[in-house]
Order: sequence, then C-alpha cells, then structure tokens
Amino acid sequence: MSRLNLAEKLIESHLISGKMVPGEVLQLKIDQVLSEDATGTLVMLELEALGARSVKAELCAQYVDHNLLKADHRNGDDHVFLESACRKFGLWYSRPGNGISHPVHMSCFGIPGKTMLGADSHTCAAGSLSMLAMGAGGIEIALAMIGCPLTLVMPKVLGVYLEGNLQSWVSAKDIILELLRRYTASGCWNKIVEYHGPGLKNLTAMDRHVIANMGHEMGAITSVFPADDQVRFFLRQQSREEDFTELSADEGATYDEEAFINLSELEPMIACPSRPDKVVKVKEVSGRPVSQSYIGSSANPGLRDFSIPALIVSGRHVPDNMSFDINPSSRQVLHGLIQSGDLERLIGAGASLHDTGCGGCIGMGQAPASGHNSLRTVPRNFPGRSGTKEDQVYLCSPETATVSALTGKITDPREMEMDYPVYEEPETLLDMRPLMGAPQEIPVKVELKKGPNIKKLPVMEKMLSVIDGPVILKVEDNVTTDDIIPAGAEVLPMWSNIPELSRHTFSRIDNSFYERAREIEEDLFLVAGHNLGYGSGREHAAITLRYLGVRCVIAKSVTLPYRKNLIDHGVLILTMGNESDYQFFGEGDRLQFFDLASLTGDNTYLELKNLSRNKTIWLRNDLSDREVEVIKFGGRINYIKGVSGG
Amino acid sequence: MSRLNLAEKLIESHLISGKMVPGEVLQLKIDQVLSEDATGTLVMLELEALGARSVKAELCAQYVDHNLLKADHRNGDDHVFLESACRKFGLWYSRPGNGISHPVHMSCFGIPGKTMLGADSHTCAAGSLSMLAMGAGGIEIALAMIGCPLTLVMPKVLGVYLEGNLQSWVSAKDIILELLRRYTASGCWNKIVEYHGPGLKNLTAMDRHVIANMGHEMGAITSVFPADDQVRFFLRQQSREEDFTELSADEGATYDEEAFINLSELEPMIACPSRPDKVVKVKEVSGRPVSQSYIGSSANPGLRDFSIPALIVSGRHVPDNMSFDINPSSRQVLHGLIQSGDLERLIGAGASLHDTGCGGCIGMGQAPASGHNSLRTVPRNFPGRSGTKEDQVYLCSPETATVSALTGKITDPREMEMDYPVYEEPETLLDMRPLMGAPQEIPVKVELKKGPNIKKLPVMEKMLSVIDGPVILKVEDNVTTDDIIPAGAEVLPMWSNIPELSRHTFSRIDNSFYERAREIEEDLFLVAGHNLGYGSGREHAAITLRYLGVRCVIAKSVTLPYRKNLIDHGVLILTMGNESDYQFFGEGDRLQFFDLASLTGDNTYLELKNLSRNKTIWLRNDLSDREVEVIKFGGRINYIKGVSGG
Repeated sequence: MSRLNLAEKLIESHLISGKMVPGEVLQLKIDQVLSEDATGTLVMLELEALGARSVKAELCAQYVDHNLLKADHRNGDDHVFLESACRKFGLWYSRPGNGISHPVHMSCFGIPGKTMLGADSHTCAAGSLSMLAMGAGGIEIALAMIGCPLTLVMPKVLGVYLEGNLQSWVSAKDIILELLRRYTASGCWNKIVEYHGPGLKNLTAMDRHVIANMGHEMGAITSVFPADDQVRFFLRQQSREEDFTELSADEGATYDEEAFINLSELEPMIACPSRPDKVVKVKEVSGRPVSQSYIGSSANPGLRDFSIPALIVSGRHVPDNMSFDINPSSRQVLHGLIQSGDLERLIGAGASLHDTGCGGCIGMGQAPASGHNSLRTVPRNFPGRSGTKEDQVYLCSPETATVSALTGKITDPREMEMDYPVYEEPETLLDMRPLMGAPQEIPVKVELKKGPNIKKLPVMEKMLSVIDGPVILKVEDNVTTDDIIPAGAEVLPMWSNIPELSRHTFSRIDNSFYERAREIEEDLFLVAGHNLGYGSGREHAAITLRYLGVRCVIAKSVTLPYRKNLIDHGVLILTMGNESDYQFFGEGDRLQFFDLASLTGDNTYLELKNLSRNKTIWLRNDLSDREVEVIKFGGRINYIKGVSGG
Repeated sequence: MSRLNLAEKLIESHLISGKMVPGEVLQLKIDQVLSEDATGTLVMLELEALGARSVKAELCAQYVDHNLLKADHRNGDDHVFLESACRKFGLWYSRPGNGISHPVHMSCFGIPGKTMLGADSHTCAAGSLSMLAMGAGGIEIALAMIGCPLTLVMPKVLGVYLEGNLQSWVSAKDIILELLRRYTASGCWNKIVEYHGPGLKNLTAMDRHVIANMGHEMGAITSVFPADDQVRFFLRQQSREEDFTELSADEGATYDEEAFINLSELEPMIACPSRPDKVVKVKEVSGRPVSQSYIGSSANPGLRDFSIPALIVSGRHVPDNMSFDINPSSRQVLHGLIQSGDLERLIGAGASLHDTGCGGCIGMGQAPASGHNSLRTVPRNFPGRSGTKEDQVYLCSPETATVSALTGKITDPREMEMDYPVYEEPETLLDMRPLMGAPQEIPVKVELKKGPNIKKLPVMEKMLSVIDGPVILKVEDNVTTDDIIPAGAEVLPMWSNIPELSRHTFSRIDNSFYERAREIEEDLFLVAGHNLGYGSGREHAAITLRYLGVRCVIAKSVTLPYRKNLIDHGVLILTMGNESDYQFFGEGDRLQFFDLASLTGDNTYLELKNLSRNKTIWLRNDLSDREVEVIKFGGRINYIKGVSGG
C-alpha cells in the first residue's frame, strides 16, 4: 500500500467511487452537515421542495449566527422558521446567542476523521480537528443532509511544513496572512492545504482553526491538520475526549506541492484594504491612524483571541474616540471570558461588547465611520462588506488590533512596552449542547412556521435549445459573491425571499441592474473576468441571477463553489477559450447559442455568435454530462425530482 | 415662611423670576444638561448655529446610547461628530458602550437638589435622586447649556403617599404600572409627581428611577423623591457620598392633589399592547403565549433588574424557541453582573446578551417575530416601536418577564415554585467617569467632524401675516412623536440629516405624506385630536413638519414638550376653542389666517376661515407674547440671533 498524506486518508476513508488521482471525479460519503441562518432558510426551503421527510446524515446542525440585529420582524421570523424546520427534519438547532457555526460546531460536534459539508464558505475551518470539511451551496447541503454523496474532483494537496516557534506578539493569524501574501487570493485553487511538521506542536486546535478558516481566502477547497495531542486536549476541554482518534499523514507521504514556514522568523502581518491577500508586514504600514479595532469572527474565534486582548488592555483605558469592539464568537467563549476575569478587564478598559455571533464581519453592525481606518481580526475586507461604502478595513491578529486600539494608530505589537501576556487554556469549557434543541428521537409532525417574508423557492424553467439575448453586464476580475448579492444589515433579512432579494443583485456595482434585467424579457448573459464568485459561498448569488433571467455566464475563470451554485440553479457556465476573447464582449451585445439540445459533457468547445459584432467566439465547456443534464432540467431540484420546472 | 413640598423647594432654590403659583410663568436656573446621540447631533448643530463658544452650565454631558447598531457609516459618523463637538464646546463625552444616558448620568453626576434639563423625555428619571429633571427639545437644551434659564409654567404637585412593603415577586415597576392604570397617559399633565411616606424606606434609588422614569408616560413634567438614606447609600456605591444632601418636603407640607398606595397590597401588573396605560393585573392575562422576554432599558436600569432575572434562571434553561434578551443598561451594570456571577448565570441559562444601551427599546434590534407576543421591561409599547409592524408588546417587571420566559407564556411570577431570590446591593460599583472624555480645562480650537450624512440645520423663514393653504393631514387622538417621526434602525441614522429624515414624516400613519407635502408649494396645516405629541420629546417631530411647509398645527390638545418644540421651530400651534370644532376640518380643506402680523399673547381667540366649508372657526391662543415673537421670527434660533431667516 502506498503512503498517504492526511488529506488522501480522509478522502479514502469516505470514498464511494472514483480514483484518488488529481482531476478524477470522486464520490464521497458526508458524515456531518451544518448550515447557518443566512443560508439555512434556503436549505430548509430546499428540503421542503425536495419533499424530504427527515435528514439522514450522522449529524446535521442549524446555527443562528448571522442575522442577530432584528431591526424588524424578518430576522425573528427566520429564527422561528428555522427552529420549526429543525424539529420537522431532525436537525440540531442552535439558538441566537450560542455563537458562530464554525467554532460552536467544532466545540460541540467536531470529530477527527469525519467529513463535513456546510452552507458557509468557512466550514473548511473544521480541518483544524482533522476533518475533511468544505463549504457548498444550499442545494448541495440539502442533498448531503438527506444522505446523498458529494461529487468532487480530486484536488492536488499542498503540504505546508511548519517548523520553529512563534515569537512573542506573533500568532496564528500571522501564519495564514503570510500564506496569503505568498499565494494570493487564487493561489490554492482546487487544492487542499495540509499542514505538517514540528511547528504544529505548539499550535492549539483553535490556532489551527484560524489558519484553516482563511485557507478559503487563498481559494483552497479546504485545509487539514493532524489529530494530535493538541486536538486531544481540545476535545478534553469540551468533555468529549472519547471522540478523539489520532490521525496524521503516513510517514514518508508526499504532496503534490510543498511549502515551508519557519515560525520563528515570522513577523506580525496585516492585510491592507480591500482584499485579504494584500498582505504586508505591520511595520510597513505602522503609524496610519485607526479609529476602530474589532475583535471577533470565525477567523479568530478562540478564547485566547479575546483573552490576549483583555490581558493587553488590563488596567489601561482605550481612548474615547476609539471604537474597541468585542464580538464574542460563542457562548462558550463569553462564558470563559467571564470566568477568567477577562471580560471584566475588557469592559473596564472601555471596550464595547456586542452580540455573540458573526456581527460586523458580515456587516451586521459595527460599520466604521466614513474615512476612518478599521483594524479587524475577521477573514475578509472586501470593499463595503463592513457596511460602510469605501471602507478602509485591515485584517490582522488580535495582538496587532488591540495594541493599535491603545495607540490610536497601526502599531507593530512588538513595540508595546509590556511583557507578552501569559495565557493558559482552561482545562474545561462550557458545554453548549444542553442549550441546543436536539433532534427528536421519534419524529413528530411539525408545521413549518413561515413568516410573511419567507417565500417558497422560485420554480425554474428548463433550458431551451436556443439562448438568445443581450449581455446585461460585463464585470472585471475578482468580482465577489458579496458584489453579486451583498450581506449586511439591509440585505441579509431578505435572504429567505428571493424575489425581494433579487432587487439587490449587483447593486454595489451597477445600481440599475435589477431594473434593466426586469425590463428585458429575454435571455440574459453575464460576462466576467477572472475569479468570478470569489469569497462567500452563498448560493443566493446564483439563484437571484437565474431568477432575473440570466441564462448563461461567460467568464475568464470562476471559483469552484460559485460554478457549482450556478449549475445547481440552472445557469449555463462557460469559460473563455482564450482570455483575450474578453475584448469581444460589450455590454448590450446580442449573443446567441443555437442547438444547445445536443450539448453534452463531451463538447470541449462551444460556438457562440456575437450578433452585434458579427463574430464567432469559441467557449470552453468543462461541464460533465451530469452537470449538463442538471442545467437542462433548470437546476438540481428539478433534476432530482425528474421534472422540468415551469 | 410657608411649608413647602419638595418640588416647591427644588423650584424655589432655582427661581430666577416668577411666583410659585400654579399657572404662573417662572424662570429657573438649570444646573446640569444632558443629551444623547439621537437628539444630540441636532443640539450640537444648534450650538453651532447659535455661534456658541463653550457651554456654561455646571455640568453638560453627551451620551451615545441610541444608535449603536452601526449598520453603515452614519452611526459611526455621528459618534465622531459628537466627540469632536464635546471637545469643541466643553461637554463630557460618554462613548458607546457606557450605557443609557439616564442611569449613567445618575451614577456619575447626579446630585440631590440640582436642576437638570435633558434632550430625552426620560430625563425626569433623575427625580429619583431628588433632582428637578425634565426633558426638553434640542434648542431648549442648547440654550440651557450656554446658561439660559428655563421658562416654565408653575405646575401642580401631585403627592403620592406610599406605605407598606412590596411583597415577594412584586417590584418598583408594578408601582408605576399601577399609577399608569389609575391616571392613564394624560392624567398627570402639567403636574409634578412627588413621592413621600414610609413606603419609600425600602425602595432603593434605582427602584425610584424605575418609577420616576415612567412618570413621563402619565404626562407628568417630572417626578421627585426625597434624598434620604437610600440616596446616600447610592452615592456611596458610586464613591460620591460627598455629593449627598438630605432633602425632603417640609413637615406638614401640602400638595395640590393626593394619592395613596399601600405597597403591601400591590400585585404584579402588566401593560397590554399597545400603550403604557393599558394596565391590568398579570393574572388577568396569564397563559397567553410569549416568544420573547426582554430585560433592559431606562425603565428598569438597575443592577437588581438584571440580577433578579439571573437568580431566577440560575441552573435552568430557557426554551430554545424563546428569545431571552438581555440589554445591559450601563457599563457599570454589566461590570456588576460579571462580578456577582449573575452574567454567567444568564449566559448559562440561554440568554442572548446584547449591546449596552437603549437597544430594542427604541427599535434598534431585538424586534419580535411577526404575530408573537413580547414581554419587555421597557417604558413604552407604542405600535411598531419595537421595529415589528403590528407588534404585540407588553410592559412588565423583570420578575414577570423572566418567569414568563421560562414557562413560555405570560405568568404571574408568584406562581413560580421557588423562593424569591435574595439580592443584596454591592457596597461599591464601577466608577465610569474615567471612561468618559472630560471637558478640557483650557478650551482648544477643535474642528467639528461632520460625516457626509450630517447636514446643517435648515434655516427657517419668518412667519408671514397670512397663512393660506390646505390641511395636509387630519389625525386622531394620542398621536405620538413616534408616529410623526419614527425611531428604529431604519430611521434613527437620519436624525442628523433633516432633509433626509423628513421623508419619514408620518410614514407610519400616511405613507404619502412626504410626497404630498413636497408637491404642494403652499402653507400647510395639520389638524389633530387630543394629546398630540405624546411620548418621546424628540424635536425632530416638529422640525421636519416645519421643514416640509407645515406653518400651523391645530389640535384639541397638545403635550407640553411637543408644544414647545413646535414653537421653537416656528410653527404656530393653536387649540380648538371647542372640541367639537374638530368636525369642521377635513383633509384638503383650504384654511386661511389673515392679519397675523397683529397677533400677540393677548389675543385669547383667533379667527380662522375654512374656505372650503365657508366657515369661521375660533381657535384658542394660549401663546405668550414671547412665544408669538419666536414663531414670528421663524423659530428660536432666529429669535435669539435677532434675525429672521430665509
């Protein structure tokens, strides 16, 4: 038997079909599935549309962490709906206030060696517990919940060898920021990042969560870490040591690609506005004024990520005009901060304590003032994601954010004239499971409680043989799913109402998009540059496009999760055979496909007429036969039910 | 010398001119002035418009407690602006996270025997510390800050004699709810409510705050309590015992009206949707389903109001589908809850902890789900104020709200099968003053930092001799300032931008109001029933009307604060000589005043022509000469500066 790396071992142990050769199509058994409230309402509506009776995966959990503001009835209605759906379909229900899905799931249910799919792009953070965990669109999630295997193209594995030890004032966030500096936002496309080496010894499970979480920002499918003594200790803290299994790569295992980091040489790093890969050393930008430091989110969710700031500010006062915002990641963390005295330290220093959950990371509050720099421990700083247009958000470690809050300017934390705080992990932490609704042993008949804002999924029509219509919009490289459908306080409450939500499609890029799309009663095309659909895995960015009549997306390249979402919602997605063909598309150009009835996964290139320019363009078709069928049916739900909609 | 009650003593010690006879006009020296962020941005703009150099009152403080959501740049910009204005004009600046103005001011700065004016209707709560404290509109506040005396009509004093002791599970909120049941929303108009008697002995200063706060809901100008050992103990907790002065009514003092409550006989009370005076005994509505219990706000701001709930839920779990929302009222309370272990108890029982501040009480988050009952310890339950249209909000004590959270239905807390928790006040509490920006000893030149949403005050034109135009809207009794200008997450961020804010004028009552008002380029009239302008004292409800062209308001009756705000912003306010004249006004009717140039405070009645009905109507004019002058100038700022605007 060959020597396998850890990623391969996790895949092999769940392999239903296919060969573990990069590029080959695999089918994997999925053990655990999670969703959160922003994406979960559609997941539950999809379970309903699929006629599901109850979930079948080993463990399914629904978290409420995004929509906590409740500015009107809609968020509360979503929570009522989700709670009823959990009882109907047999999921765990995690109430508002329990915290962010990823750390809470890790604490309550994470088990080394398991596979997991989650309706949130940061699901990959569970790789910290030696799980093979990936984000996916809502339909994929609904299907995994009812026991369907996941189809996956075998990725390459990038082995990252860590050696040495982090210096004082340098922490896990700096490791992943350094990798982002090296690999950029698309450098790990279709790869799994596997961490190994002696440098892991002093990285706790929650430190690894920090690193695995932002692996997504490099485009990685997921990241994995071995299950070692650090993982055993973490599970013991959670009173679940019995769930521990030791797991690591076989000795002498190899990787498709390799990287090395000497932790001892690492310095505090920071991502500048407005992309997570615009990383420099903190000292390169030190001195810039700061008016907000924000501690929280799934990117720095561990108790230490709050306790270290508390110990830094202990006995000091943050300036009046500094917004020092604490967003605890979980009820467990909040509880731990109370017990250790660290919450008292934060409050006494002038911090503002906010709701336990995602908060400002997805624009639900804590938006920075206009023209003021904000330092955040969150994973993303896309333009406007904070809620403030033309925001200036930097991503950094809790150490850098906190020291800068005290000085009022970006500061290399090593300049702080104090000893690096001594933090010790507690032996046990609050068990949050008693504060979750557990699935009923005997399923009972439950009505789904739908408030007035929760609308049924729109039924999509099948694809016709001819697609003929104008280019409604042409966009550049790196358009994020945030650009296509924003989150934030204004828009998130509509995520369970596609007709209303669709009004916000591309609103950040082109305010007229919705009106124009509604006016044109024809098939629409979208043309894009590289890396289309970067960022969050929200399927809303696909479903609203389709709802507004976009039948085909043509891009230089598209991220894997967004590609899947487009297909699952019946949108034909093709890439340019030649990047320079981008110039042959203009907004308003009339495009035409004919004879799509004969389209299969075998056609390598597809002929498109640009009637406005009297030009033929050849597009790459890398769809599988099954994907073509899904699109022809008008999306995955129609395909599975064997009916074309409309 | 005659024997004075406490209200009279407080007035006498600050009397600049006038006689203490009910109905007589007085001028009072104002010692302390506060504003909060929702109203404070206009106050600071008014200081700017007045050309103020620095504030002159003994103590001026600006709190940030309303707009904490920061869904976009606007709230943060407001905070930056307020902080700069405090430095420019010499006010204390209380940052976000310090808490609600009223309890924070009481803890940090309240002194028995002082007078106070506040740009918030619940300023009256400081009566708990034996202060004469009243809410007022922004201009009045700005003027008090720069040392102008307050003009006041000498009110009647209602003496409420308390005897006996509260039973277990009955608390201060039940006392004020019982009074609201008796006096209704307008029963204490133009009165001061003074509490006395042996029943006070066991009511802490914070219990008295609960009662004084909601005195406003009965229409009272303010409420006062003696400064006794309870007040001394409170000041000692705040490390300010030196600020204590004993104060009480002279022995044998009398009251214009009297009431008696035997505390021993009081039962748990509750105000039903949707007005604070729809009060019944809890047992009369017990069993109704509840999906939210909300602990917080200025109406129950004391540490005990959070600790009692914590002790009730200790070791229990609130059901999954119950939203048990904790909104700490101040940093001091949050700190106290951490220290006592009560925050741990709340978190362990499943509560959601929210921002320290006003929160859901003014619709900034925590809106209930559609069609679900919400129990709240807040002071107001006007329709839609929670953020949810057609909400069903009940007002009750922390005891009733907490026990109902455990049972999932409205429950008389005496039915709880446990001993009433034993709560002891801590000897000392967190001193919050070091976490406030103190006024500079030597004023420095400071630029006001105005974000793009902060607009200069509109300059108003002077009143012309003829007002001629249509009735833009005719409304019923009890229209609140919330109805005229809503608060809440959507609208509050616009309170520093009158042109934008005016779009929401009357939006809850008549969605077309703004459009119609903008279209008609004539003078507009508003016609109203009784008690116009009930509730919050926001001057925005006057300034937006004037901004949209309303020159005259005609009502059966108008609340004192709203009347003042209308005058201060140049709106002619008159009442109907005969209530039945209400029938002679219809929406769209063309009304006409002529010869307003000769209007003075001496005209008792004023002739109005309803041209549409060919009818003459005589309106009551109870304006003073000075008030007439203010209106003629187009508002108070023009009047003071001696210039007509426009």
